[in-house]
Amino acid sequence: MTKPIYDRVALIGLGLIASSMFWAMKRSGLAGEVTGYARSAETRETARRIGLCDRVCDSATEAVEGADLVVLCVPVGVMGAVAAEIAPALKPGATVSDVGSVKRHVIDAVGPHIPEGVFFVPAHPLAGTEHSGPESGFAELFDYRWTLLVPVEGTPRDPVARLRALWEGMGAFVEEMDADHHDLVLAVTSHAPHLIAYTMVGVADDLRRVTDSEVIKYSAAGFRDFTRIAASDPTMWRDVFLTNKEATLEILGRFTEELFALQRAIRTGDGDQLFDYFTRTRAIRRGIIEAGQDTDAPDFGRAKVAK
Amino acid sequence: MTKPIYDRVALIGLGLIASSMFWAMKRSGLAGEVTGYARSAETRETARRIGLCDRVCDSATEAVEGADLVVLCVPVGVMGAVAAEIAPALKPGATVSDVGSVKRHVIDAVGPHIPEGVFFVPAHPLAGTEHSGPESGFAELFDYRWTLLVPVEGTPRDPVARLRALWEGMGAFVEEMDADHHDLVLAVTSHAPHLIAYTMVGVADDLRRVTDSEVIKYSAAGFRDFTRIAASDPTMWRDVFLTNKEATLEILGRFTEELFALQRAIRTGDGDQLFDYFTRTRAIRRGIIEAGQDTDAPDFGRAKVAK
Repeated sequence: MTKPIYDRVALIGLGLIASSMFWAMKRSGLAGEVTGYARSAETRETARRIGLCDRVCDSATEAVEGADLVVLCVPVGVMGAVAAEIAPALKPGATVSDVGSVKRHVIDAVGPHIPEGVFFVPAHPLAGTEHSGPESGFAELFDYRWTLLVPVEGTPRDPVARLRALWEGMGAFVEEMDADHHDLVLAVTSHAPHLIAYTMVGVADDLRRVTDSEVIKYSAAGFRDFTRIAASDPTMWRDVFLTNKEATLEILGRFTEELFALQRAIRTGDGDQLFDYFTRTRAIRRGIIEAGQDTDAPDFGRAKVAK
Repeated sequence: MTKPIYDRVALIGLGLIASSMFWAMKRSGLAGEVTGYARSAETRETARRIGLCDRVCDSATEAVEGADLVVLCVPVGVMGAVAAEIAPALKPGATVSDVGSVKRHVIDAVGPHIPEGVFFVPAHPLAGTEHSGPESGFAELFDYRWTLLVPVEGTPRDPVARLRALWEGMGAFVEEMDADHHDLVLAVTSHAPHLIAYTMVGVADDLRRVTDSEVIKYSAAGFRDFTRIAASDPTMWRDVFLTNKEATLEILGRFTEELFALQRAIRTGDGDQLFDYFTRTRAIRRGIIEAGQDTDAPDFGRAKVAK
């Protein structure tokens, strides 16, 4: 155990990310005491039962009192309201951060509430699973995954460097990025793919001539990968799309354009265009595997379930 | 070891499916001798080196001579030509089958070449991985996965029952289905999702303002699941789209319609519509897991790679 990076950390919101942060901090002794708060009494109860957080508080202000780092782990749409609530209780010199999937909106919503003498360093760990809630977290979630820090102008280097050290201590690679670029990059690598997956699963569910039971039984032909993504937390994703509207719509516009071009190639029987397109997309997969961001094992190496 | 179901099986085309069939048949002693043929000399060489097939032949006609079951494991677009080539060498009473992802086209292309006294029983194992080629096969590929048999009208029950026994012996669940319904179901569970994944990966690769290296590094946010599907064999998929044109275009049309509705909800800020949609799609995922067609482990339980 090394010296903790923060003596006291407060986690506001106790879902997949916060619970994984707790276990990751404990794994390496990165924080002295970790307090936690969740709006739902049931979540707080669960957290107490499973030992999530050293101390679960019944209000957000109680949780942040005396904290050196406060991390907002709530859906993007309520970040502003939570920031307003905790602002009076923040300790001078503390750092406030977040884990939201959208950064420009969070900066606009949270920034104005941050008191003089408190630092705001937005962050976004690019890690997650299709599961949500306080019991879904695990210490390894951030290992070898990127966390993007999006410091606002004028922030001193020290709180940024300390937050970086925390994320690195939790296993992540860290990079800094501008908020607008972050929102565009994430629209490509996350937001548009999620909306597309949700749509495809919705279409399958909607069709009258193909039953749900057929869709389920025969999903291993490709469809089931979409269903994993489309099982992600609905509140979180609603907020992502509402707050990263422009970038998401831009990428979806490009996507539709390209999809129409491929549909035309199918309709006109242009096999060469299809073949070339499908060959080109293989290279990106190779890059991801070489970069250690996915496994090369067939089908992600997933286990089969005997039923 | 039980008595083999077929004394001699010929595999024409030696990619992922044929090589998995070979190992699966050997695992349970389902076939006496298995011969194999691939058009490419390099593939035949690889097959001989790794012991894929009891005997690798230098022509398709040589491979099918005396075979009780001939399985066409070539891209859908060349099934007809291969059937024409082997037809004169087929043994009376033999069964010809295939593993193509499209069934109406294969029936139309292969059917007319099948000689009197030979049975044609089209089939489609709904199993695969993103890898291709003779070295990508493994005995467990079909375990707990569905194989659809699509017998043409007037086929006696015996050759159908025997082929069913083979697939069940290779670990698969088996169901029979009409060709047109098969092509529609697969358009939903496989063909449309593949085209959509190819498109999304193409869009990411095309964008000027987001670099490939960013797309690769930050792919764990959702995008990388698409890249696995978009790494599938380009020839196979070109042929699928060209030969299951109508059903694929119909599903893509429905998909675009629905995507536009969600884009409108984003643009107008209709959070309720988004939330309801994202909640509904979770149920399908639960169904797939309950049916044993996917794992509930977070992120498919895939291993992380330390780099």
